[in-house]
Amino acid sequence: MLTLYDNAESANGYKVRLLAALLGIPLEVVWIDIFRGGSRTPDFLAMSPFGQIPVLRFPDGRVLPESNAILCHLAEGTPYLPAPGYERSRVLAWLFFEQYSHEPYVATPRFILRHTRPDHPRRAELPWRQARGRQALRLLNDALASSSFLMGESPTVADLSLFAYTHRADEAGFDLAEYPNLPPWVERIRALPGFVAMEPPTELTLVD
Amino acid sequence: MLTLYDNAESANGYKVRLLAALLGIPLEVVWIDIFRGGSRTPDFLAMSPFGQIPVLRFPDGRVLPESNAILCHLAEGTPYLPAPGYERSRVLAWLFFEQYSHEPYVATPRFILRHTRPDHPRRAELPWRQARGRQALRLLNDALASSSFLMGESPTVADLSLFAYTHRADEAGFDLAEYPNLPPWVERIRALPGFVAMEPPTELTLVD
Repeated sequence: MLTLYDNAESANGYKVRLLAALLGIPLEVVWIDIFRGGSRTPDFLAMSPFGQIPVLRFPDGRVLPESNAILCHLAEGTPYLPAPGYERSRVLAWLFFEQYSHEPYVATPRFILRHTRPDHPRRAELPWRQARGRQALRLLNDALASSSFLMGESPTVADLSLFAYTHRADEAGFDLAEYPNLPPWVERIRALPGFVAMEPPTELTLVD
Repeated sequence: MLTLYDNAESANGYKVRLLAALLGIPLEVVWIDIFRGGSRTPDFLAMSPFGQIPVLRFPDGRVLPESNAILCHLAEGTPYLPAPGYERSRVLAWLFFEQYSHEPYVATPRFILRHTRPDHPRRAELPWRQARGRQALRLLNDALASSSFLMGESPTVADLSLFAYTHRADEAGFDLAEYPNLPPWVERIRALPGFVAMEPPTELTLVD
């Protein structure tokens, strides 16, 4: 059995749980309290020096960090990742876009809004981060103008990766209704056979 | 012939030129003046809505953005990218690390130091960005403690991607001598047959 080290608040972790559910891959999930340093303990760092969740652990003890690398690993040989060639490389381009141009500007504002007090100094980051987040959402919206999914009429890991924080963008201060192609795309992903929802958190932790 | 849209100041573009040189792949390079909006013109955005260099254009007109996606595309079937499986997925994890945890904290300080005036408001970003840059360089240093390259005794695109901004980290305010495994790794990459150096810029452009 594969083990996923994860946290229920992380849509990076949820990406992996979603793909595994869609592909019918069983996962044992170990919940890590990242808000109290759970991914920076000596034991965790000995397992994965990157010090972040999600981490996938194989039965032989090898581990794989980075949510988008895990998506590609699990999707290999399935319709969620095209065979090597131009289509696969375009999927990879979306995954790098997600980590460089979307996640810091959609996921990080969500973190700041949910896990810091209203007078926290990090609140000052919201305007510039959200401005770049709107750019990323516009680009995503434009890319979905003429097809059901980013790579055409079938979903790939590019959609799942970008769905993860986009479908919770309201929690980051964005209004998805401003991007008309995004709500139907979100609904198309929600309608995929095997879809699982991101678990609602029972309790939010504030950070110092 | 493949065409690369690039800028001589960008180590993201240099990554691609370096891999192409090591693999003997000819590239026609079109230099884009990114400091004067050259990657945000209507023509450029019509070609690549991501609005960034590097972009690889194929003879049939299709294009591929994102430096690390281009590296994987060109390296497919060569020793620079392992076959699908765990080793390839670890390479991908390094590439996502590079874009999320290294580039914003090593490349961006270099940009700020080289392309803004000393009293520019963006100078205020340097302390926190460089602190995270030191974390990334330490992690890279630790990963190179027991092997010549990140994935063992042979170089992969993981090394080339991380080499790009790391070997110019002095221009970003870092001292590589503090990371004892990095200078020998830089020298090993410089010694690869076919290696080409990043071109020294003839003139630095300041931004507003």
